[in-house]
Amino acid sequence: MLQSTEARTGTAIGEAWPESTAAEIAAAVQSAADAAAAFGATGAVQRATLLRALAGALEAEREALVALADRESGLGLPRLNGELDRTAFQLRGFADVLERGDAHVFIDDAAVAGAPPAGRPRLTRVRVPVGPVAMFSASNFPFAFSVLGGDTASALAAGCPVVVKGHPAHPELSRRTAALAQRVVAEQALPAGVFQFVQGGSIEVGVALVNAPAIAAVAFTGSFKGGTALAKVAAERPRPIPFYGELGSINPLVVLPAALAKGAEKRNELAATLAGSICMGAGQFCTSPGVIVVPKGADGDAFVDAFAQALQGLQPHAMLSAGIRSAFDKGVARWRESALLKPLLNDAAPADAATPRPYLAEVSAADFAATHDLHEEVFGSAALVVRSGSVDDTATVLEAVGGTLTVTLWGAEEDSIETRHLVRVATQVAGRVLFAGVPTGVAVTAAQHHGGPYPASTQPFTTSVGYAALDRFLRPVALQDAPTWLSDRQGVPC
Amino acid sequence: MLQSTEARTGTAIGEAWPESTAAEIAAAVQSAADAAAAFGATGAVQRATLLRALAGALEAEREALVALADRESGLGLPRLNGELDRTAFQLRGFADVLERGDAHVFIDDAAVAGAPPAGRPRLTRVRVPVGPVAMFSASNFPFAFSVLGGDTASALAAGCPVVVKGHPAHPELSRRTAALAQRVVAEQALPAGVFQFVQGGSIEVGVALVNAPAIAAVAFTGSFKGGTALAKVAAERPRPIPFYGELGSINPLVVLPAALAKGAEKRNELAATLAGSICMGAGQFCTSPGVIVVPKGADGDAFVDAFAQALQGLQPHAMLSAGIRSAFDKGVARWRESALLKPLLNDAAPADAATPRPYLAEVSAADFAATHDLHEEVFGSAALVVRSGSVDDTATVLEAVGGTLTVTLWGAEEDSIETRHLVRVATQVAGRVLFAGVPTGVAVTAAQHHGGPYPASTQPFTTSVGYAALDRFLRPVALQDAPTWLSDRQGVPC
Repeated sequence: MLQSTEARTGTAIGEAWPESTAAEIAAAVQSAADAAAAFGATGAVQRATLLRALAGALEAEREALVALADRESGLGLPRLNGELDRTAFQLRGFADVLERGDAHVFIDDAAVAGAPPAGRPRLTRVRVPVGPVAMFSASNFPFAFSVLGGDTASALAAGCPVVVKGHPAHPELSRRTAALAQRVVAEQALPAGVFQFVQGGSIEVGVALVNAPAIAAVAFTGSFKGGTALAKVAAERPRPIPFYGELGSINPLVVLPAALAKGAEKRNELAATLAGSICMGAGQFCTSPGVIVVPKGADGDAFVDAFAQALQGLQPHAMLSAGIRSAFDKGVARWRESALLKPLLNDAAPADAATPRPYLAEVSAADFAATHDLHEEVFGSAALVVRSGSVDDTATVLEAVGGTLTVTLWGAEEDSIETRHLVRVATQVAGRVLFAGVPTGVAVTAAQHHGGPYPASTQPFTTSVGYAALDRFLRPVALQDAPTWLSDRQGVPC
Repeated sequence: MLQSTEARTGTAIGEAWPESTAAEIAAAVQSAADAAAAFGATGAVQRATLLRALAGALEAEREALVALADRESGLGLPRLNGELDRTAFQLRGFADVLERGDAHVFIDDAAVAGAPPAGRPRLTRVRVPVGPVAMFSASNFPFAFSVLGGDTASALAAGCPVVVKGHPAHPELSRRTAALAQRVVAEQALPAGVFQFVQGGSIEVGVALVNAPAIAAVAFTGSFKGGTALAKVAAERPRPIPFYGELGSINPLVVLPAALAKGAEKRNELAATLAGSICMGAGQFCTSPGVIVVPKGADGDAFVDAFAQALQGLQPHAMLSAGIRSAFDKGVARWRESALLKPLLNDAAPADAATPRPYLAEVSAADFAATHDLHEEVFGSAALVVRSGSVDDTATVLEAVGGTLTVTLWGAEEDSIETRHLVRVATQVAGRVLFAGVPTGVAVTAAQHHGGPYPASTQPFTTSVGYAALDRFLRPVALQDAPTWLSDRQGVPC
């Protein structure tokens, strides 16, 4: 059963309702499959119009949607208003991309007379919509990574119908947003199959959706456990399909000595910025910094003191759901039991408080690198400070992390052998490398890459944020000696 | 043990030698890992020079290599000389791509002042070499899909060291080509780890290579069984890695009524072309046409008669190895036992002949679509004729095939609702759609796409032939607020 709940109190709101049945899921997928040819045949302008209409509808219902999101998520009105802005911006951004023609870009290689290998027929490389996409909403961004978030926007932009599974942590907001989307699709005179919606918290719902034969690709943002389970289902279908999963990330932030050489004021400012990033949204960001590498020595000690003090003074708000809070408490409890970690915060708050307390502990680079358990994400306001004695220490820490959405390098402004080495190691393990600021906050733009080696992404060559997200749903096809009528249509068959 | 063998007679040539040990495989991977940073840091010009030197060395040793390839594969001197040409052309083609700067293309989004979502930091999207690539050679192209084939060329072009596993069907040619490559790498003053070589026919060798922690991606061309087994190994590593596998394809060729409306001469010419394609290289092409869809009716009957007659007159040469021949015989025997199939050739040759006989049988569209066994590739000169009564029949046949490297549509020159529908269905199931000629023969060019929905490819968005093959080994990374020194280097850290 699905139950809308006040995130801050755990109080149920209204009646519970049943999750989608197997028959309902099959019907939703069938409807999407029936719409695939017609929707794939729409032009860029028509799809851009749909995306703009969805953005407009979200904004028109802003007041009700944001209030509901706030009750179900506890994320607060300012953040949620900003997130709705971002979601609308993103929908319109994909519309811009379509209108520029980027989705239908193609390569046309003229025939070359003569024998192979130099001689060749005419080849035109086009991209075709992959087909119905199953989209699994995330809990932590009730707008931007949920029903009308980036995955849905990019799949629709590509001409693929979507079957969205709402997240059970904000079920009422999800079905309201889905109803809005379905109304807009109808107003645009598009088949209802273009946007289908299912709901459920059980593993069966997800498995049924991924196993539906007509589903051509899956987009997922969520937990490592749920993501790896569904990735396995996608890989073991009679016909395996691409599973675009973002499964978690610990986002190392490296404070290089140069970042601490600018005086106490700058140092304290960095410490406060970092503490704020860790507590932003109660740490419920996939890009929340979870490992802070700080040099050994007096400057590093002073930074760690300032950082711990800043964090001590912050109070994260209530977490998204009782389940997420319980996972956070268990993760912190596991760290508390580790003899390798030295706690850095004085934590007197009771364990059953409505809001979590941040957690910070220190560990040596060698112990961190050698201990696999410490590389696992604790989702929430918790981080480890790793003390590094050298560039090699720092590289070892990054390599131990292995796969992450982001690495942040503070103090890499000067070119040197050591800095180059660290930048190279950072690019080997991360999808985004920052040289200033904090990783929380992911701009929606063409150059963005929100992915990274496993487990940050199950498909590290793809991104789930930014306009390259479209590429996940447009499969290349080479047309050989295409007839004139097809060339005139730039290779798009219908 | 590895044993060089005369393909035509099965006679052993020289002494057998042992396959690579676990320690040798580990050492090869370690050597590649040690070379990854330095090789990744080479410029496009240096890598282009390496590729050109490899092409030149192949050509310089042409006579000895082609003669050896002919003994081990039985493919004949003209074909093997052409294949060596193509392999050298391909190496030089990637060199051209590098010199044009395509490998280091990047997107630079300037910072935008103001609050998000419109405000943003500067983001630069670059591409970094993924790291050491394990490359599994194929049996059927001893040059173009083997030691110095397209996978190796594209990985080296991307700045990734390769660990090549030679194919045991041409072991002597493989180690000779590998020695040539290692000599060229040394002459270019590059670390030996840039090109490493292992050999073995056992599953253990392949598993050890895919499981080596420093391997960052796998390129594979080969059997469905071997490919799915190794794909599973890649997916179940502690850190799963991309597995670019091309596992087999039955390449439907659709003869539309319009193709048969041009008189008997044209019809017989098409029939002869098709029979030639099926017997080319004894049918040992991943793009060999395995399903021929022919309209019901008098024109279709006449085409099938001409086609069967043309095929009856052809004699494929000896197959690549006793194992491949045995698999072909078993596949044909399975078809012979099927009550659904009506044989079209008079086959009097003994089953133990040194060379195989082509096989052709007819089946109804409904029986084909409903019978999963008939969708499995029989590697060699064997095909099924499927008789179609309508566009819907044909679409059903293509959808039953589901995933294939190619679909060929003969007679789609005129635009119509039906043709559009078939083109759309073809693009949904194939990586390449041809409108003339036969699918055997894959041009090396920018627009080429040699992939397709599973099992044609385990990564249908990527290609193993053509210049986009490079994209498999260059992972995007977004640099946020990159310092001046790094921007000056266009985002390449070292």
